[in-house]
Amino acid sequence: MAIRVGILGYGNLGRGVECAVKHNPDMELAAVFTRRDPRSLTILTEGAKVLSVDDAPSMKDDIDVMILCGGSATDLPGQTPDMARYFNVIDSFDTHANIPQHYDAVDKAAKEGGHVGIISVGWDPGMFSLNRLYANAILPGGKDYTFWGKGVSQGHSDAIRRIEGVKDARQYTIPVEDALQAVRSGAGPDLTTRQKHTRECFVVAEEGADKKAIEEAIVTMPNYFSDYDTTVHFISEEELMRDHAGIPHGGFVIRTGRTGWEDEHSHVVEYSLKLDSNPEFTASVITAYARAAYRLSREGQTGCRTVFDIAPAYLSAQDGAELRKHLL
Amino acid sequence: MAIRVGILGYGNLGRGVECAVKHNPDMELAAVFTRRDPRSLTILTEGAKVLSVDDAPSMKDDIDVMILCGGSATDLPGQTPDMARYFNVIDSFDTHANIPQHYDAVDKAAKEGGHVGIISVGWDPGMFSLNRLYANAILPGGKDYTFWGKGVSQGHSDAIRRIEGVKDARQYTIPVEDALQAVRSGAGPDLTTRQKHTRECFVVAEEGADKKAIEEAIVTMPNYFSDYDTTVHFISEEELMRDHAGIPHGGFVIRTGRTGWEDEHSHVVEYSLKLDSNPEFTASVITAYARAAYRLSREGQTGCRTVFDIAPAYLSAQDGAELRKHLL
Repeated sequence: MAIRVGILGYGNLGRGVECAVKHNPDMELAAVFTRRDPRSLTILTEGAKVLSVDDAPSMKDDIDVMILCGGSATDLPGQTPDMARYFNVIDSFDTHANIPQHYDAVDKAAKEGGHVGIISVGWDPGMFSLNRLYANAILPGGKDYTFWGKGVSQGHSDAIRRIEGVKDARQYTIPVEDALQAVRSGAGPDLTTRQKHTRECFVVAEEGADKKAIEEAIVTMPNYFSDYDTTVHFISEEELMRDHAGIPHGGFVIRTGRTGWEDEHSHVVEYSLKLDSNPEFTASVITAYARAAYRLSREGQTGCRTVFDIAPAYLSAQDGAELRKHLL
Repeated sequence: MAIRVGILGYGNLGRGVECAVKHNPDMELAAVFTRRDPRSLTILTEGAKVLSVDDAPSMKDDIDVMILCGGSATDLPGQTPDMARYFNVIDSFDTHANIPQHYDAVDKAAKEGGHVGIISVGWDPGMFSLNRLYANAILPGGKDYTFWGKGVSQGHSDAIRRIEGVKDARQYTIPVEDALQAVRSGAGPDLTTRQKHTRECFVVAEEGADKKAIEEAIVTMPNYFSDYDTTVHFISEEELMRDHAGIPHGGFVIRTGRTGWEDEHSHVVEYSLKLDSNPEFTASVITAYARAAYRLSREGQTGCRTVFDIAPAYLSAQDGAELRKHLL
């Protein structure tokens, strides 16, 4: 019997999960839950239900894993623990500083409900975190580097949109090639924020807006832009739609370290992603971990987990003997 | 109390494990076991014992994990199951085709002895296998590529040394840059053996040897060279010692795949290693997994495991809360 998946929240991530479920023959989409009027929502999967989030508890026997596709700022801190009372749950909670308290909240609710909850799944946190952990364990005393991009930062794009006179905007985070090369050399450079990434902004201004003032407001914006070399391009709405409609992203996790009795040998471990669609890839990672949540729950486990706590074999549709034969 | 490590076999890999243990403050080297006369062996670690392999069973209460550093062809198939009766064990068994039967033998012995055995640990099999598994689970329907090098292939170097008139040799496996780029484009090319790697050989000929015949013997050698574009350089023994004394290696595991309702988006996941010392890096991976073997055993688990079966957190000296706070 297929693993029955529920999706809560039908934005880019929710649609990505729907597509990922289609790519995994051992899973099926049971229902999409929304806070909007369910009748206003059209989904892609034939036969799957569209229901109000208020109806979720009544579906507790019809869904094996509920995938939470809301945002980390206001949705997930409440939703993931709430839903863990009724379902095995997975989310992509990515506010790094608040992960410990989110973990505790989900752990408590999941244990009370007798379910498994897996939090902070995706690529960062997620696959990047895993690669940091593996490389740290292998090369103690080394140095970690994470570069993001080239890709669209939703947060930075939103920050630009809030500036007066801006109609729309897209911001790309771009790793600095020279910095990447310096890291890969094994020299272990200390890099400032400015040396690691540049930011490139494509801005549609309102008619008659003061472009000079917009540019100044962007490049001097604290936290978001002031510590970076930022380039601003003003383009038309048509150009934005035509050339910047995608949500690509990616990045690099690199650890360098030394081995040998006197640290005489240098090593570079690098993991990189080049993603046409950030939400669809994130959704694909989450969907693989949904399989793990289902299996852990079937074993009788309960409580909160992260990618660190889950043996890789749980992610695969293949069994242990097949994996050893074909992938080891 | 530190994790007490034993090393069986003191070649390049064994010395690499000794160095790795030095880099991990929660571990200590208890003893090195050898099939040679123990008095003939000088090790680097002060205070660690050097003993005959025949004395290993008598040390069963003084060692938490025995790391087997012999070869896959003749040493490990017997040694790993033998030692699993007395110790938690780890090896780097890398004869891919025989992994299933090795797994069964170690599993049986480890269960009978009440120990944990982890086999096929290193980078391939090992970290490369893990990356294949993760990327396969995330991108079902994609394509896998593994490239090795640039690095020294011990097996190919040995094959050249067996040719008449050859005094010494070093063989480098080199990935073809154009093939790597084609894979990274996401085009999913079908690549022949010849298109993926070239082989470069540095050969020291015996005085008066027929170099033409040696070169012909190399490039036409079935399995090892005939399917590749192979370059042969004759150099002096001094040049070989000066320029080719190291044992560097590395490689790339790449998976490309598509997501979206109609497969409209392409993704590239890449993991790469650039290693100054193949045996020391392999040893560092094994040593991290020794920590996992110790912990699994303390939990009361027994039997054989591979890297697929072990949650990443077991490899780290940090506890779960620290990992979530700092690496997730």
